[in-house]
Formats: sequence, C-alpha cells, structure tokens
Amino acid sequence: MLNRVRSAVAHLVSSGGVSPPRPKSPDLPNATSAPPAALPEALKSPRARAGSESGAPAKTVDTRASFSRPTFLQLSPGGLRRADDQAGRAVQSPPDTGRRLPWSTGYAEVINAGKSRHNEDQACCEVVYVEGRRNVTGAPKEPSRGQGLCFYYWGLFDGHAGGGAAEMAARLLHRHIQEQLKDLVEILQEPSPPPLCLSSTPGASDPSHLVGPQSCWSSQKEVTHESLVVGAIENAFQLMDEQMARERRGHQVEGGCCALVVIYLLGKVYVANAGDSRAIIVRNGEIIPMSREFTPETERQRLQLLGFLKPELLGGEFTHLEFPRRIQPKELGQRMLYRDQNMTGWAYKKIELEDLRFPLVCGEGKKARVMATIGVTRGLGDHNLKVCSSTLPIKPFLSCFPEVQVYDLTQYEHCPDDVLVLGTDGLWDVTSDHEVAATVDRVLSAYEPNDCSRYTALAQALVLGARGTPRDRGWRLPNNKLGSGDDISVFVIPLGGPGSYS
Amino acid sequence: MLNRVRSAVAHLVSSGGVSPPRPKSPDLPNATSAPPAALPEALKSPRARAGSESGAPAKTVDTRASFSRPTFLQLSPGGLRRADDQAGRAVQSPPDTGRRLPWSTGYAEVINAGKSRHNEDQACCEVVYVEGRRNVTGAPKEPSRGQGLCFYYWGLFDGHAGGGAAEMAARLLHRHIQEQLKDLVEILQEPSPPPLCLSSTPGASDPSHLVGPQSCWSSQKEVTHESLVVGAIENAFQLMDEQMARERRGHQVEGGCCALVVIYLLGKVYVANAGDSRAIIVRNGEIIPMSREFTPETERQRLQLLGFLKPELLGGEFTHLEFPRRIQPKELGQRMLYRDQNMTGWAYKKIELEDLRFPLVCGEGKKARVMATIGVTRGLGDHNLKVCSSTLPIKPFLSCFPEVQVYDLTQYEHCPDDVLVLGTDGLWDVTSDHEVAATVDRVLSAYEPNDCSRYTALAQALVLGARGTPRDRGWRLPNNKLGSGDDISVFVIPLGGPGSYS
Repeated sequence: MLNRVRSAVAHLVSSGGVSPPRPKSPDLPNATSAPPAALPEALKSPRARAGSESGAPAKTVDTRASFSRPTFLQLSPGGLRRADDQAGRAVQSPPDTGRRLPWSTGYAEVINAGKSRHNEDQACCEVVYVEGRRNVTGAPKEPSRGQGLCFYYWGLFDGHAGGGAAEMAARLLHRHIQEQLKDLVEILQEPSPPPLCLSSTPGASDPSHLVGPQSCWSSQKEVTHESLVVGAIENAFQLMDEQMARERRGHQVEGGCCALVVIYLLGKVYVANAGDSRAIIVRNGEIIPMSREFTPETERQRLQLLGFLKPELLGGEFTHLEFPRRIQPKELGQRMLYRDQNMTGWAYKKIELEDLRFPLVCGEGKKARVMATIGVTRGLGDHNLKVCSSTLPIKPFLSCFPEVQVYDLTQYEHCPDDVLVLGTDGLWDVTSDHEVAATVDRVLSAYEPNDCSRYTALAQALVLGARGTPRDRGWRLPNNKLGSGDDISVFVIPLGGPGSYS
Repeated sequence: MLNRVRSAVAHLVSSGGVSPPRPKSPDLPNATSAPPAALPEALKSPRARAGSESGAPAKTVDTRASFSRPTFLQLSPGGLRRADDQAGRAVQSPPDTGRRLPWSTGYAEVINAGKSRHNEDQACCEVVYVEGRRNVTGAPKEPSRGQGLCFYYWGLFDGHAGGGAAEMAARLLHRHIQEQLKDLVEILQEPSPPPLCLSSTPGASDPSHLVGPQSCWSSQKEVTHESLVVGAIENAFQLMDEQMARERRGHQVEGGCCALVVIYLLGKVYVANAGDSRAIIVRNGEIIPMSREFTPETERQRLQLLGFLKPELLGGEFTHLEFPRRIQPKELGQRMLYRDQNMTGWAYKKIELEDLRFPLVCGEGKKARVMATIGVTRGLGDHNLKVCSSTLPIKPFLSCFPEVQVYDLTQYEHCPDDVLVLGTDGLWDVTSDHEVAATVDRVLSAYEPNDCSRYTALAQALVLGARGTPRDRGWRLPNNKLGSGDDISVFVIPLGGPGSYS
C-alpha cells in the first residue's frame, strides 16, 4: 500500500513493546483462543511451508532478501526475481499449464514502482474442507468425514510497513475460519434454525416458562444460518489478529495489512473487508458494490468517539476534535471551524490551548491519517505501530473486524460474463467502477464463454490498465495521467462461469 | 409514543437527582451555552405563552389537567376538550378559515386510545427570521435587518413518560436553531466558501507557510455552506437538551421526546431526525426516504460499544453482550449464541456468571429496549430516567444528536403533487411507505392542484387511515387489523405547491 503509513512520522518498535490495550475478546470456547501451545497444527506458524499445496505465500529461495509470492503463481527462482523487479514491473499470473485456480478464477499482480523493497500484497485461493468437531447437543463425537463442509476461499492482503502481517494472514486466516466453522458443520446443514443454546441435556434449555408476555424478553430472536457464518468470519479475523500479537516477538510479524476475503459456502458468497481494498460484482453490465472502505475519513466518528471516551489513548498529544487545517498558536482565542464525534456538519468554536494539539484525524482522501501516521483504520497486525517520537500506540484505534456483505448466488441465474472483482487499492486508486465494468465487457467478449483463460486475461488487463506503461519518467496511463505506483493485485471470480459450484 | 418507556420497569425521579454523566459539549461561543441567566429572551422558558403567534403549543385553559395542543390548531376550550377525548379520537386540523400554515402545509393529529392521559405528541410550524450577530471578521457590528435570513420550520415531537419535554422542544428548539444561525447570516449569503477561522485581523490566518507538501496537513479542507447549517442544527439539538437538563427541577420538564425537524433555507431542505419518527418524500409516485430511525436495534453496536468502554455505566446490573433470549442460571457453562459490539453475526460462547446479568439491549421490533426500559435511543430530555428499582441513569446511552439529510429543492422541478410527509411512529407503525404514497395519489388527485386545502385533507386521510374506526372493542383498519392506539401526528409539506418559497 502506497504511503499508507507515513514513514516520516512513524516508526516501528519491533521488540519488547508492551501490547497496546485492545478490546478484550469474550472467552470463546474454541481451540484457537487457547494459548499457542494448544493451537491446531494448521494454525501454527512456520514462516514458510516449502512445497505447500496452499495458495498462500511460500518464501522464495532468492538469496537477496526474504520475500514471498503466492505459491499458486508457481514461480521459479528466475520468475521470482522478475516478479520482484521494480524497473520492469512484469504482470504475474498463474501459468496456463498446470492446475487452474478453483472456479477458473483469474488472478494477476504487479509489484510497486519503488515505494517498498518488495511487493507487500499477498493473495490466497483455496478450497477448504471443514470436518465437524461436535454434534449439536455438545457431546463429543467421532469425526465423520461424510458430514463435513467445503468452502471456497479467496483472500487479498495489502501489507504496509513490512510484509510480515500480510504473509501470515495469507497463510493462516482461512485456517482460523476453518476452525470457527468446525462447531457449525452440523448446524449449517440442518434445515431448522440454529439452536440458541447448545445443551448436553436436550430439552433442558426451553425457556418458555420464564418469560412473561409484553416483556422485551418475551420472544426468542431467530438467528439465521447466514449470521452464524458471518459471526465465524468476524471471530476468525479477531483470532488471526490476536495470533499476530502473540507471535510478533518470536517471528517478527512486521507491519500490518488490509484484508479482503471472499468465502463461498452453501450457495452464498460472503465478502469480508477490513481496510481499503474493494470488491464489486459486475452482473449483466450492472455494478454491485460488495464492500465499503475503512479509512480515517469513513471512520472519523468512531475514532473521535474512542478518543473522547478514552482520552488516555490520546496521551496528551492529540485532540479528538477535527479542524479543517492546522491551527497556529497565535490564533488562540479566535474562532475556528471544528467537528466533534457527534457532528457531521461544522461549527465555529473559540480556540483554546488544548485545541493546539495535533488532531487525532486529519487530512483528506489518500492523505487522511490517524495520529498523523496511518491511512487505513481496519486490518490485521500493526501491534507495534507507534506515533513518531513517542511511545503512544496507534493499535487501539484500529479495528480488526471486517464488514461482511452476503450475496445469494442462487437468487439470480448468472452468465459466464458475470464476475466478482477483488482489487487492492493499487487498482482502485486509478480505476473507477465503470472503467472496470467496461474492461470486463471488452476482455470477456473477446473470448469464448467456455474458455477458462478469459478470467486471467481480464485480471491481467485490469492490472495493466492500472499500472500503465513507462513514459516521461513514470508509469503513465493512455490519458497521460500517472498510473498506480503501488502494488496491484486482482482476483476475477466468475459467478456463472465454467467453475464447479459444489 | 405507545409503550416506548415501559412503565412496569421504569420510574421517573423528578426531583433532586444528580445529572447523569454526559458527553461534554465544546465550549461554544454563543449565548445559548451560557448560564441560564444570560439566555436570549426567546430561549427563556415560560411554560405557556398566552396569545403567542408561535405554532408551538400553548397551554389550554382547561381546568381538568395541564396539557396543550399546537396554537396553530386555534382550538377553543370546547375544541381542546374534544381533542383530548380518548373515546372519540376526533382528528384535529387547523381551521379552514383564518391564516394557513406556511406553504399551505397540511397537518392533522389524533390523541391515543388511552396509553397516556393526554396527547404527548407536539408540533410546531414557523417562519423564523434570523438577524446577523456579527460580520465575517468577528468584529461586532450594528444589527442590520436587511441582511437577515428567513427559514421555514416544521417540527414533530413525540413525547414519552410525560409531555413536558415535547412541549418545551416544540416551544424552543427553533429558537435554538435561530441562535446558532445568527453567526452564519453573512457567511451563508456569501458565494465564497466559509472562512475556516474568524479572525479580527484579516489576513492573519493564512497558514500556507506552515504546512509542508505531502503532509496530512498540506491542504485545507473546504467546508460547504450546507455543512455549516447541518452543524448549526446539530448543536441546537444539543443546546436544547442541555437546557432541559438545567431546567428540569424548576420547571418539571417531564419525560423525553423524539424530534423530527425540517428546515428550508436558501433552496435546501434539511431533515433532522432524533428518534423513531420518519420522513419520506413522495415525488412523482417515487418514494425517497429522508430519515432513519434510531432504536435499540438500529443503534445496538453504538450502545454496546459504550457499555464496553465505560462498564461503570452498566452499574454491575447489565452486560454489554447481546443474547437471543434470557439465560437461565442452570445454563451456566453451556454454550449460547451472543453478539458483542464488533459483531453483526452471531457465535456461541460458554455462559459465565456475568452473562446472567440483564443485557443492555434486548427484544425485537417495537419491544426492543435499552436497559429493559426505553425503546428509542435518540431524542431530547429523559434526564431523570432511571432503571427500575435502581439509581442507574439511562441518559448516558441516549443521544440527543439528530442525523441530518439534505435535499436540494432546486435540482428538480416539483409539481403540486410532490410532498414531504412527516409522521410520528403512530402513523408508521401501521402504514407502509407504499400505502402513504397510494394515499398521496388518491387524495391529491381528488382536488384541483391549486386548492390549498388538499394538503390538510391528505394529512387527515393519513391520520384516519392509521387510526381506523372503532369496531370489535378496538380501533380497526378496513382489513380488520388493529389501527394505531398511539398518538398520531402528520405534516404534509408541498414541495411544488401553491406555497411561496422565498
């Protein structure tokens, strides 16, 4: 992510720091919230899994530096060096030969133009089998492979201030989701609504005799299967973030990352986003946004409220009020426009001494920052991120929770030209939704509907269109505007294509 | 508002209570944030203004009890008694004779079927002149009537647990807005963007030499005129609420109220809503929602976050977690569905001792409650509201801030059948947006476009349609479902009608 963390004002304290205070998670009764020693094998954290079948990144054997690209790119040592070449910026895709990605998914990526030494984006594409852990009544049971569930999984992770968090998320986040779903395998396959309470003595939890009429307790809420999957994804993000916090010392989990994840399970597509990557569906030419971005601008009121309620998090260095520009000390006593955590409009206030502190949120667009440092407000990692020349942690203001949007794939008969496009901000900074839809139309119409390579060609076209070509001492688009100098990664997921939807 | 505050579990401590902790307001440099002694004359709080020209309520001379209806209804003592008759539930509108409401606005109301002794809804419709207080540079200047501004104002106030707050809001909220706009009279009439800082030495506030390139401070935010009006409305709501807090002892400001307010100023319509009243525009048959409702369900995550960050506000009596039904003590140790402040989905957790506390938010739909007491989460007043059998204040969880939506009246050529409909929840509980749109079409097409009485007829039809007729021991709709037993109040504001839009 280009300039997402201002190196001029931020530094990383990568050893021995005290974990910043974070909202405590409820004591969830699953294996992943247990201490690291009890982690399931899949959730343990080797830094690279040589020869892994996983779509998550494996470290290269390149000796210049430690970096990795997704294994599904099947890069040779020479290919890895080309992928890491910031002068040539060659677009990378999985090879035509060999195993395709599930659903004939298209993928393409390109390294940045020099903003960081390596490509800090990571990607993962997997089919994950979930074996049930227990039956509905809570009694342990023998594993029975026939009752398991499969989900399809795509993840884009846009790293900042180091590649470690993105690498770890690409390697492990789907495993956390798998762990969370283990308890739900039977419940999700039952046609009846999920049980509200898992009791070992059936019938014991009927509360009807306890609730009187006319009370706010008089009814039970009906909880849907869909909302259980959403809850599983939300908790998986939190547990991934907690694992990063635990392992940051031993394994040097550097930096943080945005995470955009898609899961297909039992007929529904779940798009979970924490950060400023974006997903849209292009369906019959129509654009359906499938995510919202989380930035200091879109989350201003959440950030200000936290600073207002917990002023100790501002360390006497910041004010939770927003001002439209920097205040000069000599303006003390004059009247300046401001907004607080309750306001969407602006009003004038008399400038007081504490208003001269740096504002918690400032700047606009790509220059918007929290604590003058970070330009994105949700994601994984960043446990060591501090304000420049200060020990003040920024993590308490960052949320690891995604917003999950659900799309029912069975409610519409999709054609092979209907796609879900995921991109890191390198794509969206220079490409509008309508330009993406036009490229979808242009590229897919040049291929036969049953040609599985069309989605990779589309992903490549989108990446190339955002990168541009080298001209006039920079990467430029056909309209001569600057192309994106950021890492760019794109998945194109066909919704009615030649893939198999189990 | 019907059953909005559960009388079974709530009580009002109307004397001597300590003000619950509330977010402090910034020290705004205007008269209304000063101590009561310095209040402008219009903001002082006589309980009734006999012979007032205001559309706000005046107290009746009826001797049975203290209650009031909007002065624009011009009710005689006999008329007031009929308006207060819960057996007949006669629909009230301003008389055909005499002065019409501005813009030929239609209005109708009806009392509840017995849920409270009097009609706790209130209404106000006014044209308000704002005289400038100072010029842009901040130097005091002589008042100059020619440079003032007019705004049109409509307000619906749905009271609960007493009529005092709604009465006070109907009488004074527009005066607070007037006060807030006084500083902006010149600025709003200048074509250039508002000055960010009001300095007494022109030119002194140019900050360009202070900010370096590439910093989040490198640009000044441009603030629009529109966002200043929004900020003025937001602060006026807060100051109104603070005035209720100050005056609650001397004047017995009982209960609280939802507030739905419309302002027309300089070509734009501002719809500000705090509570569960609603506004929609019906334009050429199309429905445009102009407000969102604020209830324990729509504000669940805000409420839970506050309880999580400030657990002292829960008093050891409540848990910030949500559960889908009441937990029994014997279920301790079992696994129950829950949601915390970060989640939109559900997951299972092991039930611990503190989960047996009452949940901060519970129930669904009209039975949803905060602290088992109140069913609406924004509004004015409620400073004395406590949890039943407890001194725990509920006010810290209630927000007085409205959400403001803006509609540019100049962007569309409106016809006389295009209307903005405001209704308290008595209307919307039993009437869908589409039913309202159908009634708009049916009633208005029965009148000539230039017949000013058509909007009153429409408001009456909407109120009658929601009230129903007495049948089978209740008020019933033509489809035999129950009509609304709540107070019902409706404004119909023509957007392209025979009104004059200054």
